[in-house]
Amino acid sequence: MTAQIAPQTADGWAMLHQFYALNWSAIKRLASGDLSELVAETVEWLSRHENKSDQGQTNLYHVYGHKGDLLFLHYRKDFDLLAQAELEIERLRIAEYLKPTTSYLSVVELGLYYATINTYEELSEMGLEEGSKEWHEEFKKKIAEHKDAVHSRCYTELPQREYVCFYPMNKRRGEHKNWYALPLEQRGEMMMEHGKLGRKYAGRVQQIISGSIGFDDWEWGVDLHVDFPNVAKELVYEMRFDEGSALYGEFGPFYFGKRLKSEALSDYLNFKIPPSKNSSEE
Amino acid sequence: MTAQIAPQTADGWAMLHQFYALNWSAIKRLASGDLSELVAETVEWLSRHENKSDQGQTNLYHVYGHKGDLLFLHYRKDFDLLAQAELEIERLRIAEYLKPTTSYLSVVELGLYYATINTYEELSEMGLEEGSKEWHEEFKKKIAEHKDAVHSRCYTELPQREYVCFYPMNKRRGEHKNWYALPLEQRGEMMMEHGKLGRKYAGRVQQIISGSIGFDDWEWGVDLHVDFPNVAKELVYEMRFDEGSALYGEFGPFYFGKRLKSEALSDYLNFKIPPSKNSSEE
Amino acid sequence: MTAQIAPQTADGWAMLHQFYALNWSAIKRLASGDLSELVAETVEWLSRHENKSDQGQTNLYHVYGHKGDLLFLHYRKDFDLLAQAELEIERLRIAEYLKPTTSYLSVVELGLYYATINTYEELSEMGLEEGSKEWHEEFKKKIAEHKDAVHSRCYTELPQREYVCFYPMNKRRGEHKNWYALPLEQRGEMMMEHGKLGRKYAGRVQQIISGSIGFDDWEWGVDLHVDFPNVAKELVYEMRFDEGSALYGEFGPFYFGKRLKSEALSDYLNFKIPPSKNSSEE
Amino acid sequence: MTAQIAPQTADGWAMLHQFYALNWSAIKRLASGDLSELVAETVEWLSRHENKSDQGQTNLYHVYGHKGDLLFLHYRKDFDLLAQAELEIERLRIAEYLKPTTSYLSVVELGLYYATINTYEELSEMGLEEGSKEWHEEFKKKIAEHKDAVHSRCYTELPQREYVCFYPMNKRRGEHKNWYALPLEQRGEMMMEHGKLGRKYAGRVQQIISGSIGFDDWEWGVDLHVDFPNVAKELVYEMRFDEGSALYGEFGPFYFGKRLKSEALSDYLNFKIPPSKNSSEE
Amino acid sequence: MTAQIAPQTADGWAMLHQFYALNWSAIKRLASGDLSELVAETVEWLSRHENKSDQGQTNLYHVYGHKGDLLFLHYRKDFDLLAQAELEIERLRIAEYLKPTTSYLSVVELGLYYATINTYEELSEMGLEEGSKEWHEEFKKKIAEHKDAVHSRCYTELPQREYVCFYPMNKRRGEHKNWYALPLEQRGEMMMEHGKLGRKYAGRVQQIISGSIGFDDWEWGVDLHVDFPNVAKELVYEMRFDEGSALYGEFGPFYFGKRLKSEALSDYLNFKIPPSKNSSEE
Repeated sequence: MTAQIAPQTADGWAMLHQFYALNWSAIKRLASGDLSELVAETVEWLSRHENKSDQGQTNLYHVYGHKGDLLFLHYRKDFDLLAQAELEIERLRIAEYLKPTTSYLSVVELGLYYATINTYEELSEMGLEEGSKEWHEEFKKKIAEHKDAVHSRCYTELPQREYVCFYPMNKRRGEHKNWYALPLEQRGEMMMEHGKLGRKYAGRVQQIISGSIGFDDWEWGVDLHVDFPNVAKELVYEMRFDEGSALYGEFGPFYFGKRLKSEALSDYLNFKIPPSKNSSEE
Repeated sequence: MTAQIAPQTADGWAMLHQFYALNWSAIKRLASGDLSELVAETVEWLSRHENKSDQGQTNLYHVYGHKGDLLFLHYRKDFDLLAQAELEIERLRIAEYLKPTTSYLSVVELGLYYATINTYEELSEMGLEEGSKEWHEEFKKKIAEHKDAVHSRCYTELPQREYVCFYPMNKRRGEHKNWYALPLEQRGEMMMEHGKLGRKYAGRVQQIISGSIGFDDWEWGVDLHVDFPNVAKELVYEMRFDEGSALYGEFGPFYFGKRLKSEALSDYLNFKIPPSKNSSEE
Repeated sequence: MTAQIAPQTADGWAMLHQFYALNWSAIKRLASGDLSELVAETVEWLSRHENKSDQGQTNLYHVYGHKGDLLFLHYRKDFDLLAQAELEIERLRIAEYLKPTTSYLSVVELGLYYATINTYEELSEMGLEEGSKEWHEEFKKKIAEHKDAVHSRCYTELPQREYVCFYPMNKRRGEHKNWYALPLEQRGEMMMEHGKLGRKYAGRVQQIISGSIGFDDWEWGVDLHVDFPNVAKELVYEMRFDEGSALYGEFGPFYFGKRLKSEALSDYLNFKIPPSKNSSEE
Repeated sequence: MTAQIAPQTADGWAMLHQFYALNWSAIKRLASGDLSELVAETVEWLSRHENKSDQGQTNLYHVYGHKGDLLFLHYRKDFDLLAQAELEIERLRIAEYLKPTTSYLSVVELGLYYATINTYEELSEMGLEEGSKEWHEEFKKKIAEHKDAVHSRCYTELPQREYVCFYPMNKRRGEHKNWYALPLEQRGEMMMEHGKLGRKYAGRVQQIISGSIGFDDWEWGVDLHVDFPNVAKELVYEMRFDEGSALYGEFGPFYFGKRLKSEALSDYLNFKIPPSKNSSEE
Repeated sequence: MTAQIAPQTADGWAMLHQFYALNWSAIKRLASGDLSELVAETVEWLSRHENKSDQGQTNLYHVYGHKGDLLFLHYRKDFDLLAQAELEIERLRIAEYLKPTTSYLSVVELGLYYATINTYEELSEMGLEEGSKEWHEEFKKKIAEHKDAVHSRCYTELPQREYVCFYPMNKRRGEHKNWYALPLEQRGEMMMEHGKLGRKYAGRVQQIISGSIGFDDWEWGVDLHVDFPNVAKELVYEMRFDEGSALYGEFGPFYFGKRLKSEALSDYLNFKIPPSKNSSEE
């Protein structure tokens, strides 16, 4: 084989999932005044970040089961601000009661499969020799236009839904089934089918794909933001049967969280879960 | 391949298995009055939840070996109540002596293989074009009827048997043996054979399947509720030879627990195991 | 394929391997009187259980390396008594200095491969239709006789040898080599060859097989009780070459222990290993 | 097959990646004078090592996520100095607040694929019999010349870029795709293609390959030093499609760090991330 | 297939690798007199064991990276003395500051491939029927002679080199490449080729193979004792290309240590690494 062609990507927010276990026993032992101060400080920080600014945004979630109690999901304009967010969490009083269980580092990513395929074809039709200086300049220019066109989608607001399902994934590089040995066009087709399936869920799921090649242990992170948990289950189950996932998808651990807005934090740390907006799906 | 068809599912209780190690040394050091208070509070909570209500139910089990000492098995009407159950456990005095070892998040699930297959056939016989707007509407309507028909089975009482065997599992997506690349009919047949085998154990085992795609690291959780431990062993061993399990089943860790009713808790925390109802199987 | 036939099994003692790390530093810091009391209490418990009764038996071992310091190996008549054994260990003073590292839950098992194969043949010769009501009744009756015949072997004494080698194992369910997709007869032949090899070691090794399907993470546990460590090595190495192991065996972690009788415990907790009975093998 | 030929390598700096979690809560509780002393001592040590000497060099990084907070990346002339660096870190006051999370031991390595291939050819043209005494002497002499020629590249300065991406990797030894069963020439060609792709990133990435066969759990370590995080992502993604990586690469966990110079340490331990030199890539 | 033939082995020293993390912070806090006493006691124990006696020998090493700080490498005449060595370490004052990270249990082993093959042939030429009583008696007698011939090599001195590289390994039992399904002669040839390659390094490496089938999680342990770290790297890399390793070798984690003689311990615990004898290889 000769090297296959990597699809171009448009990249956006730097992104960090931070999962923490909360020392509930120590929280219980806090004097009520100390707890109030701790809550107030955390609420203050969170309320400053839970709405999108040009610097980014942070959502907080309750995490189900033993994989953690809290998830801070950060979007930031760059990696410096992301590191700063980590330190700001550490500086909060609540950090004394938090123990990291896991994390995930990535950047919001739009895969430009069709832009890549089309650009190759256009340059070929223009008679440019692949790999030549002219070809590279033209390629860079055209791809930059494609990136510009989706720039705002790379820096969207963090979805404001009730629940989030997060999992990392790879494309398989097996001894027989190997995504990275397939031609770009074939991968592009499978991605298109996959995308179609996703669009069936438009309005019920907001899906954020982030790329983590070079940043973390899996190749992509997937966040599914939903108002009803079973929608995430239905989507992931159905997707498992499309060709790209059935033959080439490898899935890491799954995490499931319920959104905690800043105004719910006081209740939460007093052992009360905030009610969801809607009780059942239409 | 084109995408295979996902079976429809009927979903019920939100479900959480919480495994905890108990700090027995600290329990021993408790003054007898303090232990009594701890027991009374736990008994009070448990007795409120060990019978089914429309909100759900919770069973407690002693767990064998190092994987934990206690298992809280929660059924809840929705994910909010499930999160609330987690916080309520944390709020109990006994939580001071509990350390989570693992957990499992899922929802009670009935796989509607035959309803799915039949509906596809019916719509085809009705002359509807697959994927058309009419097809989708009719499909949704018919599946909703199937779901309604099994609604109560999705919200059954938690079985009141002496022992529970829990394990998560996947359907294999190997490079050569791949469940998700098989046609719906073929999967349906294997599931039917599997179900037949299960029915041989009717009366001796109550099996609860829960779906965890999108929620936890494996695709399904299986709870086998039995009065005699060897029945679980016999069933799982025999099932390992049916085609769907032999070729496509992947099994996670196994957990085995003995039921602790609220009235047995005081004895248990004083190091006495409650006797089982029956000493041997007929 | 149609479902293959599971071999019948005769089951005996409920069995738990409990591996613990010992906090030697804390033991050293104990006042000598406190250590004596701790030793006396442990010795009292152990001496009550190290001889077989109709309730079961417990052997204690020193474990080599970092996987633990002590192994309690319990046989019990049923799972209630097994849970009670766990709590009794927790109640002992020594438990304060023990931290579980791992454990294994299983039941002593004799695989009735030939009884299963022969019974199928006998029922066929009797002209009974497989799966009919008469067939099932006759099958159950005949297998019950086979189980009765080996009942005492399912409830033998725990071997009183100097060393124990323990490991869990599976039969492979690979994509190409799959034990559970083989006909019963073929599996039976491989098991017979395996058994023959084992009998070459009669007198030098007492092997206990226990089944853990439904109970723990692997399918079987194997205990090799020997007076000379290299005999375990020789046996496992030779067995690795028979067809059933070479092609279908999957082996878990290995644990190696040296027997600690109750009368050796005081020395042991004073950092002295008891000498073995025999210094070298004939 | 007969044994394939191993490529010769030119080896340089002994190298250790040390990842540590920082106890931020304890840092917060330090009296301001104590923190100043701790900072001063660490700065003093770091400033002595962050510039290359003939003994080596050490860079410090903030690590993203739960895999650690600090990464000390040491180059040393030999393994004694490397061990001495470990002890010096332990002796610092800050070590009281550090807990190792992971590490990686390797030596800077240049694979001499073409030197090896060419030398084999030259010796063959000289009419020397492979494996003869003359052949070995001549081989050793010629390879020594090749090593001398790249000596300075084996002892370069640690790149002074803003970010580092580190991951370990293997060449696959699968049952069907096995790097170590391929002829030297074929491996050499794939390495050359791989190298070409790398050179496309010259100026944007400084890549350091280190060999860890015999030293650590993977075969090589890769450090990508970049000024812009997305450049690392782009490079690793593109490389995943070249033949050698697509078919034979196996990748371990990924770590991502931001450079902390000695002058930034005081701010960092006061929860302030130093700004990067450049805000965006040309 | 019929069962393949296991090679006979000659076994020697019982062997335990004990890896410990050292609590450097607590060592730093020790009063200087207390540290001196701790050092003196450890030096006394080590100096009694670092020279070979008929009971065995113990070498101590500094371990690189986070896998530990100290490695005690014990040779003992039997498993009782090995257990006694474990308890003696626990009894030392320094044990208060040591935490086991991992360990490896094995016995020094010489694989008697050619003795096994030749004995089969000799007995065949003598006209004995394989498996007959006479055959077994003669086989046992001849193998015993082979074992006697290598007895002293099974009980050699622990190499006194500057560095040790340790790793465990298996022979592959894959679905397609399966060492245990190969004929003895074929395995013998690969082992001979492997051995030839090893002998190229005579004088630069002392290799100790120990068998751990039945004792620990991998099948063999390999210790490479060298005076120059890169020699271990070169040997393991070159060996990876011989047929037996390329197709059938599976390698566990690698550990690398620098020898600490008893006279260097005081310096070491005062944060000073002892210099190596030689600064560079010829």
